[in-house]
Amino acid sequence: MQGNFFDFVGGSVGKWKVTGIETLTGDALEPVTHLSVISSDLIQLEHNGLWRIKAFTSNVRYAEKTDRVKLAAVQAELGRPNSTCAAFIPIRKTEAWWALAQDERRRIFGAQSHHTEIGLNYLPAIARKLYHCRDIGQPFDFVTWFEYAPADEPLFDKLLDSLRTTEEWKYVDREVDIRLTLIPN
Amino acid sequence: MQGNFFDFVGGSVGKWKVTGIETLTGDALEPVTHLSVISSDLIQLEHNGLWRIKAFTSNVRYAEKTDRVKLAAVQAELGRPNSTCAAFIPIRKTEAWWALAQDERRRIFGAQSHHTEIGLNYLPAIARKLYHCRDIGQPFDFVTWFEYAPADEPLFDKLLDSLRTTEEWKYVDREVDIRLTLIPN
Repeated sequence: MQGNFFDFVGGSVGKWKVTGIETLTGDALEPVTHLSVISSDLIQLEHNGLWRIKAFTSNVRYAEKTDRVKLAAVQAELGRPNSTCAAFIPIRKTEAWWALAQDERRRIFGAQSHHTEIGLNYLPAIARKLYHCRDIGQPFDFVTWFEYAPADEPLFDKLLDSLRTTEEWKYVDREVDIRLTLIPN
Repeated sequence: MQGNFFDFVGGSVGKWKVTGIETLTGDALEPVTHLSVISSDLIQLEHNGLWRIKAFTSNVRYAEKTDRVKLAAVQAELGRPNSTCAAFIPIRKTEAWWALAQDERRRIFGAQSHHTEIGLNYLPAIARKLYHCRDIGQPFDFVTWFEYAPADEPLFDKLLDSLRTTEEWKYVDREVDIRLTLIPN
């Protein structure tokens, strides 16, 4: 185990029950009733689901020092006992996005889209973790995992509405939004 | 094959003959006489060498638009018939580097270290390609492959001397410099 690799497996078993799947852009994912998040590695191929997305955590790619300080002060970890709702949102961006230079992507992400600032408004209610998968040949570029209390779902929807109207989101060409609830032990 | 993954295999066979191995910082690599560069994928594990470093090409992480335009105007591709010399330089950076925010890393890379500007002075004589491997659990963070004509080796040494005295290089905690010549068909 390398520690930074995870398999997100959609199927008929798992700790998270699927309550809704919405395809916002591009191709859908095959419908499933359950999702598992499994600590994995680069080469683990087998899974017991209908599909699997492999992704890894990495260093921060865009956030600048001042934003990171603000985020660190308010952000929450995954796994809070009250956070029995989750969202699994795999995203792919266009080739045009990836062909941009770092400062061009940063300008769209930061100055034009206020991606981090939007997120800050919803902390600590919404916990968030980003995983990368573009470099390892997966059908998406990133997956983001969100956790929140059931009462905060309307707040979470508002967060997504804000992000999806940004300049940055014009570069998103595949997005699926899977909502989940934690199955009690 | 995903197309962006490569195995760099050190052993006793291969298209490139090792002419020198110098460990600049950190642990050495086991000495080998030959190196192969093999188009690979995420899961290919087998190799016929003493060691293998798996790495992938990715989007540009630091270069800004103006630098990219300058680079594009003068940079050369790998595989030029006269470029029978190569250098394979795997590098690892400290945890302190990876804990920095994007703007802090960019400031060290750009304003303080002039990494791209230094490189520009040596183009098109020195062709260069960067591969990433930190995210996939390899013993290095990057490997860079350089190609040049035999007469340009002193120029290449000068390029490395310049880079190794930059602020950025204070964050390098493992570096091995392997020099190679192409074995004629």
